[in-house]
Amino acid sequence: MNNELDVIAIGNALVDVLAHTDDAFLAARNIPKGSMQLIDAPSAEALYATMGPAVEISGGSAANTMAGVASLGGKAAFIGKVSNDQLGAIFRHDIRGVGVEFESRPATGPNPTGRCLVLVTPDAQRTLQTCLGSAGEVGPDDIDAAQVQRAKYTYFEGYLWDAPAAKQAYLKAAGIAHAAGRKTALSLSDGFCVDRHRAEFLDLVSGHTDVLFANESEITALYQTGSLDEAAAAVRGKVDIAVLTRSEKGALIVTQSGTIAVPAHPVARVVDTTGAGDLFAAGFLYGLARNKPHAECGRMAARCAAEIISHIGARPETRLSELV
Amino acid sequence: MNNELDVIAIGNALVDVLAHTDDAFLAARNIPKGSMQLIDAPSAEALYATMGPAVEISGGSAANTMAGVASLGGKAAFIGKVSNDQLGAIFRHDIRGVGVEFESRPATGPNPTGRCLVLVTPDAQRTLQTCLGSAGEVGPDDIDAAQVQRAKYTYFEGYLWDAPAAKQAYLKAAGIAHAAGRKTALSLSDGFCVDRHRAEFLDLVSGHTDVLFANESEITALYQTGSLDEAAAAVRGKVDIAVLTRSEKGALIVTQSGTIAVPAHPVARVVDTTGAGDLFAAGFLYGLARNKPHAECGRMAARCAAEIISHIGARPETRLSELV
Repeated sequence: MNNELDVIAIGNALVDVLAHTDDAFLAARNIPKGSMQLIDAPSAEALYATMGPAVEISGGSAANTMAGVASLGGKAAFIGKVSNDQLGAIFRHDIRGVGVEFESRPATGPNPTGRCLVLVTPDAQRTLQTCLGSAGEVGPDDIDAAQVQRAKYTYFEGYLWDAPAAKQAYLKAAGIAHAAGRKTALSLSDGFCVDRHRAEFLDLVSGHTDVLFANESEITALYQTGSLDEAAAAVRGKVDIAVLTRSEKGALIVTQSGTIAVPAHPVARVVDTTGAGDLFAAGFLYGLARNKPHAECGRMAARCAAEIISHIGARPETRLSELV
Repeated sequence: MNNELDVIAIGNALVDVLAHTDDAFLAARNIPKGSMQLIDAPSAEALYATMGPAVEISGGSAANTMAGVASLGGKAAFIGKVSNDQLGAIFRHDIRGVGVEFESRPATGPNPTGRCLVLVTPDAQRTLQTCLGSAGEVGPDDIDAAQVQRAKYTYFEGYLWDAPAAKQAYLKAAGIAHAAGRKTALSLSDGFCVDRHRAEFLDLVSGHTDVLFANESEITALYQTGSLDEAAAAVRGKVDIAVLTRSEKGALIVTQSGTIAVPAHPVARVVDTTGAGDLFAAGFLYGLARNKPHAECGRMAARCAAEIISHIGARPETRLSELV
């Protein structure tokens, strides 16, 4: 059908607030570097007040991935919740501006649009402090069955598991996708997120997920193994494809029939790793949806990740279709 | 006195909304490349809806200059109007976050915080479409005489002349500064702005301004001359110091006693010229306030401008004090 989507994603609709900081700033506040933590509105206000000047760029893990798919020339849709406020207007503009279908009704309650305070240290690492706001209100009613059925892949961010209604939305959408003979994909999102929801993630991965994205700390957290190799052995056969990313060491594509190692794409200078995993997933999913061989999906994914870590922010600054 | 300020500025408090675009986008909308035009809220909504994905960074010409002065280690203050909304909170956070004193009471009317839609073309030029919102409500009541008296320099952006109340604020502050034996500085802001207010600017420059900043198109628009040399001859003696910027050709510092040519600071890649003039003014004013020779003021100014055109946005990404 001509209105077929390559990928639809469900995730937290967030605006990123990015500021440079240093390790001492994180240490003084007991914030683990590289993690994502959920914080409430007063904590977000207090942290923001102590952060330096920032820039605002639309974010949200799965939303970034959809922006990447669209930038690659793919057809993408996003389901997520913003409020009727200025940050919500920014989120809506930016995701539609890159060509992603985004029709979710705005939230009507008192919560503002969610934001993610992104603290970028001199080593280009990012540490996330997320105030979910209305993003956490996405629920089963936001899932349009006909829209999910149009998508070759339905993609979920693990972060959804932190909000009960979002979890229900996830399960509903996954059921619809599989009943329609479509595939599902999941990103584990964050090692701490895996720790919070390990039993449920183990159940999800094994039987409900066709394509799994995880970095080294996430997959070892999931299987509580000491090495990536052990984790790779544990996940093999649980999903059709496990894509295990390893930062500058590239990625492993693990399937029942074998493992393919994908090198990282060279980068002149790593400026900000925010969105590296999100854009890797974008390149890989787009390749899968367009029936590319796994190795080529991996190469495209590595190219997309390289673009995003070369500048501040987790949305592409260049049309990715011109790069891959 | 130990609470002395190097510079206080009065200007439009704006959040920049920066997006990449191409020349055809501007041409199709009859928007002159490189200009600043004021647009109303419906026009801003309509333009925004057709722009691609954007990033939000605090802006405002004189506010950028104060951020630069503070980043250089100077003591700076800013007077301007935002609303009690999310963009207003962003503006307040960012200017205070870099260390600028900002105590202006927020606007209480229906206008939202002002925004400037910045269209960046592939040649790194920026074209500004400004929806003033509450920024245009700054008025004489916002001028705290004691605060102005604390400042060695009181700096104004020419854009203020587009809003009647802001013009009154300007004249009040200039009067206070001069009565206290302090200096005033003015940026002509934009050639089209000069065209709109030429007679008043001629009067202001001649007799009310100690330091004038203008680029080539602005100073030739002011004196309606065919060349920069003629304009330089026309302005000499009208102000203590006229700083005439010429993009990649550097700048001329014109005083009664002569002219100093300042080369541009080399830049590996010009990404976005937004803020180049603002940051040039920051370096120059900081140098003047710290009693540096004019040539050294010019060198510092060129270094600051080089930093700002090397990345997206008009606020420094690096502590300028480490560069100069």
